[in-house]
Amino acid sequence: MDGLQIFDCTLRDGGLTNNFFFEDSFVRDLYQANVEAGVAYMEMGYRASRDVFDENEFGKWKFCDEEAIRHIVGDHPENIKLSVMADIGRTDYRRDIIPKKESVLDMIRIAAYSRDIEEALDAVEHCHCLGYETTVNIMAVSNDTEEIIAEVLEKLSESSVDVIYLVDSFGSFYPNQAAHLMDQYAKAAFPKGKQVGIHAHNNQQLAFANTIECMKSGASFLDVTVNGLGRGAGNCAAELLAGYLTGQGKDCSQEPFIKFIEKHVLALKKEGVVWGYDIPYLLTGQKNKHPSKAIEFIKEQRTQYTDFLRELAG
Amino acid sequence: MDGLQIFDCTLRDGGLTNNFFFEDSFVRDLYQANVEAGVAYMEMGYRASRDVFDENEFGKWKFCDEEAIRHIVGDHPENIKLSVMADIGRTDYRRDIIPKKESVLDMIRIAAYSRDIEEALDAVEHCHCLGYETTVNIMAVSNDTEEIIAEVLEKLSESSVDVIYLVDSFGSFYPNQAAHLMDQYAKAAFPKGKQVGIHAHNNQQLAFANTIECMKSGASFLDVTVNGLGRGAGNCAAELLAGYLTGQGKDCSQEPFIKFIEKHVLALKKEGVVWGYDIPYLLTGQKNKHPSKAIEFIKEQRTQYTDFLRELAG
Repeated sequence: MDGLQIFDCTLRDGGLTNNFFFEDSFVRDLYQANVEAGVAYMEMGYRASRDVFDENEFGKWKFCDEEAIRHIVGDHPENIKLSVMADIGRTDYRRDIIPKKESVLDMIRIAAYSRDIEEALDAVEHCHCLGYETTVNIMAVSNDTEEIIAEVLEKLSESSVDVIYLVDSFGSFYPNQAAHLMDQYAKAAFPKGKQVGIHAHNNQQLAFANTIECMKSGASFLDVTVNGLGRGAGNCAAELLAGYLTGQGKDCSQEPFIKFIEKHVLALKKEGVVWGYDIPYLLTGQKNKHPSKAIEFIKEQRTQYTDFLRELAG
Repeated sequence: MDGLQIFDCTLRDGGLTNNFFFEDSFVRDLYQANVEAGVAYMEMGYRASRDVFDENEFGKWKFCDEEAIRHIVGDHPENIKLSVMADIGRTDYRRDIIPKKESVLDMIRIAAYSRDIEEALDAVEHCHCLGYETTVNIMAVSNDTEEIIAEVLEKLSESSVDVIYLVDSFGSFYPNQAAHLMDQYAKAAFPKGKQVGIHAHNNQQLAFANTIECMKSGASFLDVTVNGLGRGAGNCAAELLAGYLTGQGKDCSQEPFIKFIEKHVLALKKEGVVWGYDIPYLLTGQKNKHPSKAIEFIKEQRTQYTDFLRELAG
């Protein structure tokens, strides 16, 4: 249990629901809740490039400037490590990531499609040399063949990366499929001293189940968001996993999340931020498709699910 | 796959959210959707005793009079079997259940706590002699010792019952616990030629995951409700299971459920009927308690979760 790392990505995945416009009080209380709950890592958001995204259209957690983070956590965050995500093709990691010794960040997570693995490896080596822990989160692997996945895993296992993530981008995996892939990831990663992680989505109400199933296959980095806050159907809920792990004897606590939900997440819902299981997300998940069409459908407040079925098939 | 029976209990478990006041059009369209989806059994509601419940306070599916059922399904339901649930202590099965040859019903499901097993066995033999298929759904086994469960299973395996159900009454089981118990149920039931079933609740977003996990341990009767409609956190959603089983090669269809949700379930939600994952249900589930306090809390539109945590502990 001690080796398990609860990894909170509420700001990063949740930011996709509100363009990263979180109040400072939200971020500060989340940080405090994570520290109290025994979360090992907190992701502050994306380190996105301002050449790619207009900063007027997004809140500051899309860019995660060093000053913005320090404004929340001070100079010396304790008992918790901090990360940002750098999305290959949407980040300028050579320009925008400063050396670790000048930063309160501990980890850079590189998100990439398997086709972009070479650039992901370059980013890993760059960030590693700057002094950071690194992960690579390979996206949309439900669309990759086992051969492509094997090739990517071999390259990653030879790199400096610390953690290799299985990402169920579309929420399409059943527990046995997630476990099968996690076995493959672990088999490549463990002999090289690397760890493996799981980032699950809830399109089929399986984010939590897939997370605990992947634990059995060796996943030690376990991504959660508070109340499942995240794009579309959302993520593995922090309060579910913390409750489970507490019962398994891990030194962590669920109550800080419950307090945080009461204080902040209910307010988000009242403001009209929408996420969680819904029929359109179920359908894109089952059909192994990106949730974008479902998000659009729900944003337009449409409810003609049978039309949506036809649109997906067409 | 052919041996798997999708069992729809939308009216029965869903009736607990609205005191069984379903419109005839809802019930008729649900019946049609179930036939089209390949559902094996549809539960029409409870066969409750009018000595125990005031019929002015409940819709007709609390009592499921023969005439009420025939009004929906006609005299000869085809391609689907029909059941009612008889709750030990709340039913007068000797008075209120007529011989099978005079009824459109095919199955009586007996719900009982393990302490009431003797009366459950009496009900089974009575209904069996009347010509019905029977199940016993042992409730709240998360509060029973393994020895008590073993004793109950032995008695049931010696009886005339056709199906023995594992019921996760409080939504407290994790997949490995559900599978472990299902193994125990199957070990008792299979040598006597009986089948086993799973009835899961969604307090921890595990109803679907626990259902497919129990399939691996031999469960062939799989309870669902459309969109998870049911008391508290609700049930294993029919659209989730049907989509999964279709992908596994079973001859069934998800689309009739999607249509039904669009036409009827969204309207229920608009009327203010509430069910599904929420923090208070999570907390009762994790603490292995009946959801009644959580239902009350949510009905009162309270959101002070931390107070609720204290109330549960007290």
